[in-house]
Amino acid sequence: MTPGAAKLDHTACTRCDRALVRAFEVLGKRWSGVVLGTLMSGPAGYRELSRAIDGISDSVLADRLSALTAAGIVSRTVDEGPPLSVEYALTDRGRALVPVLEALGRWAAEHLPEPDAT
Amino acid sequence: MTPGAAKLDHTACTRCDRALVRAFEVLGKRWSGVVLGTLMSGPAGYRELSRAIDGISDSVLADRLSALTAAGIVSRTVDEGPPLSVEYALTDRGRALVPVLEALGRWAAEHLPEPDAT
Repeated sequence: MTPGAAKLDHTACTRCDRALVRAFEVLGKRWSGVVLGTLMSGPAGYRELSRAIDGISDSVLADRLSALTAAGIVSRTVDEGPPLSVEYALTDRGRALVPVLEALGRWAAEHLPEPDAT
Repeated sequence: MTPGAAKLDHTACTRCDRALVRAFEVLGKRWSGVVLGTLMSGPAGYRELSRAIDGISDSVLADRLSALTAAGIVSRTVDEGPPLSVEYALTDRGRALVPVLEALGRWAAEHLPEPDAT
């Protein structure tokens, strides 16, 4: 692959770009990644997630779970009980995403310095 | 890895999440992915990129190139000439990102349906 030859084929994958934009819309919000990362270790209830994720507010956790559930990345299972319980888990779609997010996180941790690093 | 055992370890990687958030800040804007994808096939000048990326406006292309250059993902090389020419190319950091974006694009194309699909 010589530089000269490579310059001949500048075709853009706009279909891929639209898919990327959809992915970023779902995943680009703060805490989405950490919620998914936490669910990687197994299903969890709301309180369990809230305790595991230090610093997340209840409203933000509820919002992220709602968006991830709507995108089919996380499942929400209600056990009418008693006692009533709700469990969140990664779907197959969510599990397929995990290695990709891990790779993106590794890239960013290595290549994008923290702006407020001390 | 039994589900029961997995439930015991809900630890959250907030450092990874911060890295992911930085990645999404840089990459989450519309057209960023397609600009990077276009540069994958080799260095290109501004006009070349503008022609290759159907539908992108000059101001958006300039903004994305500026952000990607600031993040060290794309390099901007000026040849004073004459004639004066400017060439954009992926840096090592940008090349390291390409397979990750491809994997994310494949995941999204497979798992996130287009809202306006006919």
